[in-house]
Amino acid sequence: MEKHTSIHTAIREKRGLEVPRDATVIDIREYLKERKNLIDHALERYLKECKHQPQTLYRAMQYGLFPGGKRFRPILTVACGELFGGKHKSLLPFACALELIHTYSIIHDDLPALDDDDLRRGEPATHKVFGEGIALLAGDALLTEAFHLMTGPQVARLLGPALILQLVHEIARAAGIVGMVGGQVVDLEAEGREVDIATVDYIHVRKTGALIHTAARVGARIGGALPKELRRISRYAEFLGLAFQVTDDILDAVGLPTTTGQTEAKDREKGKATYPSVVGLAAAKGRAQELLHHCLKELQVFGKDADPLRGIAYYVTQRVQ
Amino acid sequence: MEKHTSIHTAIREKRGLEVPRDATVIDIREYLKERKNLIDHALERYLKECKHQPQTLYRAMQYGLFPGGKRFRPILTVACGELFGGKHKSLLPFACALELIHTYSIIHDDLPALDDDDLRRGEPATHKVFGEGIALLAGDALLTEAFHLMTGPQVARLLGPALILQLVHEIARAAGIVGMVGGQVVDLEAEGREVDIATVDYIHVRKTGALIHTAARVGARIGGALPKELRRISRYAEFLGLAFQVTDDILDAVGLPTTTGQTEAKDREKGKATYPSVVGLAAAKGRAQELLHHCLKELQVFGKDADPLRGIAYYVTQRVQ
Repeated sequence: MEKHTSIHTAIREKRGLEVPRDATVIDIREYLKERKNLIDHALERYLKECKHQPQTLYRAMQYGLFPGGKRFRPILTVACGELFGGKHKSLLPFACALELIHTYSIIHDDLPALDDDDLRRGEPATHKVFGEGIALLAGDALLTEAFHLMTGPQVARLLGPALILQLVHEIARAAGIVGMVGGQVVDLEAEGREVDIATVDYIHVRKTGALIHTAARVGARIGGALPKELRRISRYAEFLGLAFQVTDDILDAVGLPTTTGQTEAKDREKGKATYPSVVGLAAAKGRAQELLHHCLKELQVFGKDADPLRGIAYYVTQRVQ
Repeated sequence: MEKHTSIHTAIREKRGLEVPRDATVIDIREYLKERKNLIDHALERYLKECKHQPQTLYRAMQYGLFPGGKRFRPILTVACGELFGGKHKSLLPFACALELIHTYSIIHDDLPALDDDDLRRGEPATHKVFGEGIALLAGDALLTEAFHLMTGPQVARLLGPALILQLVHEIARAAGIVGMVGGQVVDLEAEGREVDIATVDYIHVRKTGALIHTAARVGARIGGALPKELRRISRYAEFLGLAFQVTDDILDAVGLPTTTGQTEAKDREKGKATYPSVVGLAAAKGRAQELLHHCLKELQVFGKDADPLRGIAYYVTQRVQ
């Protein structure tokens, strides 16, 4: 793990935040960069196994995955795993599978049938480069390969089939109707309509929150967290997932590129259900700070070992540049 | 299992086929109807668990699944499982998961981005009823829920996590880039181009063959087939998968509704790679007969117990009405 160079005081002074006393903040940019590299290499390795397959499909999957992704979900898996002593080789298949699932969801989301976004992370969306048919199939392939990756014999030897089965079940649940896909449907149906804050929360909890929540839990479980510890990580990740989305909504509202790299102010233009559009910008900012505080509170018992998770919470809500 | 009423002699006389001496043919229509009912009830039961979710999504998933599907893949799983003494309650989660995967693939396939089919089994395609966005998400949900279903705790208690993990891995492989999705890409790329018989075989083996092959293998493995028996079932299912597609191509070429219920002669109109378009109608018919013969040969060692699988092979190549 990286040397801790505290940026904690600076942030506290700048934002007037209450930060638990026992917490220090590591140089999160360095941590994120290192873990991103780790995950990118693993993703490349896994993807290479598909290289002999239809070239167009392989290229579209690769285009969707590289470069530009911040690897937020897989980093969270790795960070939560590390906290409990989990090994990278056990964590990476699941971390990467979660990134494959996230990537499929944004490829499909950008299609004209859904959000109709031409740009993703400032580059043409997958369907603008490969056509809608190949983009659709590349998404399908990424989702399917995620499950193929998690259930492979090497992974089974490392973690044992019983645990893997439970993790795969949890991931499928988070990605499916009670999670991500269900959230996307409610989001689609809310477009252009008057919605209340409960509906916005409901959409966020499912559309982005469920996978983030699961990414953290899966890491903690692979690391060997005790039930009590897992409950703390679960709550941390729930707050983090909401904080992530509230902050993205704020960035979108003020016309800055969002974490997911969507075209500026796209959500606002479309009349999507967002925090600032429902409660106003100031209240949304207050909510982000409140969620950060909740995140940090859950981590208190873990002491300094949880610094990467603290750093991630700061990063998400304040986007340390 | 149904009483065996032999239609074997009639078929042999009519078609001049060589059928192994020890084989009898059961009333396959009755068998298929009963197993289809069994599967439909199980599918309804599983799907009900999603009922409290976004109603539109639930209705679109249900619309894609019911009614009209012949349940070919899940019936094959059940029939192969029964041959080795497999219990229905152990076979049905996997049989149904395979039908969910098949249904997702046809919903996506019918979208304007791919085949742009307005009709499926004579009824408006899912996207014509629910819109493209919901159809896309219903497909995504069906694929995801298939993995959720197979990895649930009840299934784990019945079959043990080690076997389940292997089966899920095999199914993900068959549905992914080296199987169904890969085949769809090659199919898409071959559209309107001059292709040889090797390419047609390649497309069929992957696009439809892989899932059919796996459906049979999964059933046999759950039933407890020995490695030697599993190899026979594998070969049977490979021939069956090809026979299935050759026959569908023939039905499409002569303008009859195909098994998958696509609009008449749609493939031909689109310049899709099919057997009759490459080798001619007579040679395609000859190939179907040859494949039926291979199927029956693999079943010989199993005696009368394999009658349902024989019946399925006849049904596929001759479409007993």
